[in-house]
Amino acid sequence: MPTQFDPPSGTRDFLAAEFEDREGAFARIRTVFSRYGFEPLQTPAFERLDVLQGKYGDEGDKLIFKILRRGEHEASGEADLALRYDMTVPLARVAAAYGSQLPAPYKRYTIGPVWRADRPGKGRYREFTQCDLDTLGSASPLADAEIICAVHDVLSDLSVGSFTIQLNSRRVLTGLLEAFGVPADLGPGVLITLDKLDKLPPAEVIAELAGRGLAESAAAELVEIVAAPDATGRIRDGLKGTGEGAAGLDDVSRILDLAGPLLPPGRVGFSPRLVRGLSYYTGPIWEVTAPGVPGSLAGGGRYDHLIEQLGGPDVPATGGSLGIERILLIVAGHAAGRGGRLDVAVTVLSEDLTSRSFALAAAARTAGLRASVYLGASGKLGRQLKWASDQGARRALICGPAEFRAGTVTVRDMLSGEQTAVPAGELSSYLARAAAGDQG
Amino acid sequence: MPTQFDPPSGTRDFLAAEFEDREGAFARIRTVFSRYGFEPLQTPAFERLDVLQGKYGDEGDKLIFKILRRGEHEASGEADLALRYDMTVPLARVAAAYGSQLPAPYKRYTIGPVWRADRPGKGRYREFTQCDLDTLGSASPLADAEIICAVHDVLSDLSVGSFTIQLNSRRVLTGLLEAFGVPADLGPGVLITLDKLDKLPPAEVIAELAGRGLAESAAAELVEIVAAPDATGRIRDGLKGTGEGAAGLDDVSRILDLAGPLLPPGRVGFSPRLVRGLSYYTGPIWEVTAPGVPGSLAGGGRYDHLIEQLGGPDVPATGGSLGIERILLIVAGHAAGRGGRLDVAVTVLSEDLTSRSFALAAAARTAGLRASVYLGASGKLGRQLKWASDQGARRALICGPAEFRAGTVTVRDMLSGEQTAVPAGELSSYLARAAAGDQG
Repeated sequence: MPTQFDPPSGTRDFLAAEFEDREGAFARIRTVFSRYGFEPLQTPAFERLDVLQGKYGDEGDKLIFKILRRGEHEASGEADLALRYDMTVPLARVAAAYGSQLPAPYKRYTIGPVWRADRPGKGRYREFTQCDLDTLGSASPLADAEIICAVHDVLSDLSVGSFTIQLNSRRVLTGLLEAFGVPADLGPGVLITLDKLDKLPPAEVIAELAGRGLAESAAAELVEIVAAPDATGRIRDGLKGTGEGAAGLDDVSRILDLAGPLLPPGRVGFSPRLVRGLSYYTGPIWEVTAPGVPGSLAGGGRYDHLIEQLGGPDVPATGGSLGIERILLIVAGHAAGRGGRLDVAVTVLSEDLTSRSFALAAAARTAGLRASVYLGASGKLGRQLKWASDQGARRALICGPAEFRAGTVTVRDMLSGEQTAVPAGELSSYLARAAAGDQG
Repeated sequence: MPTQFDPPSGTRDFLAAEFEDREGAFARIRTVFSRYGFEPLQTPAFERLDVLQGKYGDEGDKLIFKILRRGEHEASGEADLALRYDMTVPLARVAAAYGSQLPAPYKRYTIGPVWRADRPGKGRYREFTQCDLDTLGSASPLADAEIICAVHDVLSDLSVGSFTIQLNSRRVLTGLLEAFGVPADLGPGVLITLDKLDKLPPAEVIAELAGRGLAESAAAELVEIVAAPDATGRIRDGLKGTGEGAAGLDDVSRILDLAGPLLPPGRVGFSPRLVRGLSYYTGPIWEVTAPGVPGSLAGGGRYDHLIEQLGGPDVPATGGSLGIERILLIVAGHAAGRGGRLDVAVTVLSEDLTSRSFALAAAARTAGLRASVYLGASGKLGRQLKWASDQGARRALICGPAEFRAGTVTVRDMLSGEQTAVPAGELSSYLARAAAGDQG
């Protein structure tokens, strides 16, 4: 039951634990992408409405969050801005705006929220994080292979476990349609149907292809070739006569030659049945799946004319997107927790020793530890140690009148209950050593 | 001149260098706040409109970016959501929503964008980062002192240079108004005028106070006490008869006793002329200024009833906000640059050695370095070394047919031009040692 205090439908509040899981994953992703020479880009949360509208098809346009004009124009009920719907249209705008200031090729990654007014559901949000990396300005299959390897390294670094990368090329698919004599106007529909080989038995796919106007025998042969476990040889034969198809196969082979030796055996392979939904791909396409996980963990491909269609310069481009929300669900809990909120909890036992306690917390911080004094109203040690325990503190500091006179601090190990008197001047180094010992 | 490719008015694109400066600063801030036991919170970019509206006064309400309803409701021209205007209203909502799940007291920080439809100007943006830390649920001056020290440590860690923290209490101001017999309805106006002592000569402030209805002599005495360089003694005398004023002075003294010894001498001091604009403060207030920097770098105070007024539970609260955009302007360039985009640039000298080059880049990455192969179309070494230089790469790897036959890689130092033949199997460790040597 949503209450008036819940965040808006389809959005989430991230409290400490979840925030730190997410930020930790983002930091690892940034490190990997940066090692590949990709640089970060951050664009505003909103763009001018005309920059976004018309770029995502009719269905996409309906899902754009539009921002009402302001001041005297508010009453018009019109919008002039809109929340970022993806990272690709802003990339096209940036490529157009900063052209020569950007390195060539421009290899960039971006991690940030996008907003879509989809119906919220399990695992489907209206505000969710997208994580894209793209190379603009290189037509080389090296650029495609680099992106595939970077995505692989991220998933491996995040301990996603077993996953495989399926590779194909739009040009292979175009060649197949040509080789099977599929009329140009039937092509897109045929590809949509072929894409269902993941979910439907071959016979149903063949029937659907026939329904689209293919001869039953041609449909059966097409499905057989595309779905064969080791299709490369037969496909190559079938595509011999087609320039596009042969060129697509060459691209696939080159990427496998580049990336294959660097990845674990069997991790990446040619998958002629891979279609991917988006119509703008022009060359190699790929998708990452994991057993037991519905849908894909990542996907991408080459889209050589899209940046121009989106308002940017006409550059070859290839890129990929990590399904980061799904990945975070899989790896949640993998990360080693950093324990409680505090490393050191400092008790405050009397009004006139408050400054002393405050300074002890500062000493713990100079040792790099997370430390705080007790901020509550109780003067009782038991109550304050309960607070220390609630914070998950590994150690509590106690400084009453006796300790103060002796110039010491009592360090209580919250696990063993053991207490040690430490000279106040040595507290910081004592705590640093103790904390190092905890980890060793 | 704005072009069609610029980001929307009042917003910015952050390309690599600026993004990394900002992220670097945010990471340091997170580390400091975390050491104080503050935990992160991230709320959605938008809230329901009714959560935000009416919380920021009439002027503030006009600056809220409102989001149009969607689907069939879009035509109504009505809004149901609005972009986050600050971090405090979302905090109140979170405190109401998660109450008992949150630690008590709840010490949280947050760093993220907020949006205000202000007229954009120099240093004034419509999308800008806010950085807040707050403690809900503690009435102790320890909580105020902790926030002041944490803000101090952040500014010091970011190398802001000389800055001072002015401390006052709303209760001192209330006591002063009482002691000077200022009628309750004149109080707010008098405080607004006193706040101008920063900018106006005392005589003008006195005249303005008289204009507000204060007797000229009372106005002159009030200004003299408040603006005196060492006002504590006289203020204490003047406030003796007022409960509020004396209590406020006690709070100020306790915070100075707690924080003062931990900070550099003269860094924090009592400033009875400090008013701060926001009417919701109820206790200690403070502001950080630096010589030559207009306005404040940070500010905050205690606001014990605001969270309830904003829809949350009735808890004592104190907090502060870093003027992070202004701080970033001051410290820009302080951060040690990380050099170019790449550490290692890998040339690709022939089609059949492409896989070799691709694998060499991977070897450099396993040494933790940023590495990429050349993705362009030129086969010429000179052209590729030019690219390596443009990327700021410290080293370039060359692997032509001769090196390939010898099982070596030529490592070129891009600063000295010196070239070293390294056995391919030792490349990763060679590069790691070389990079460590660069820093040593």
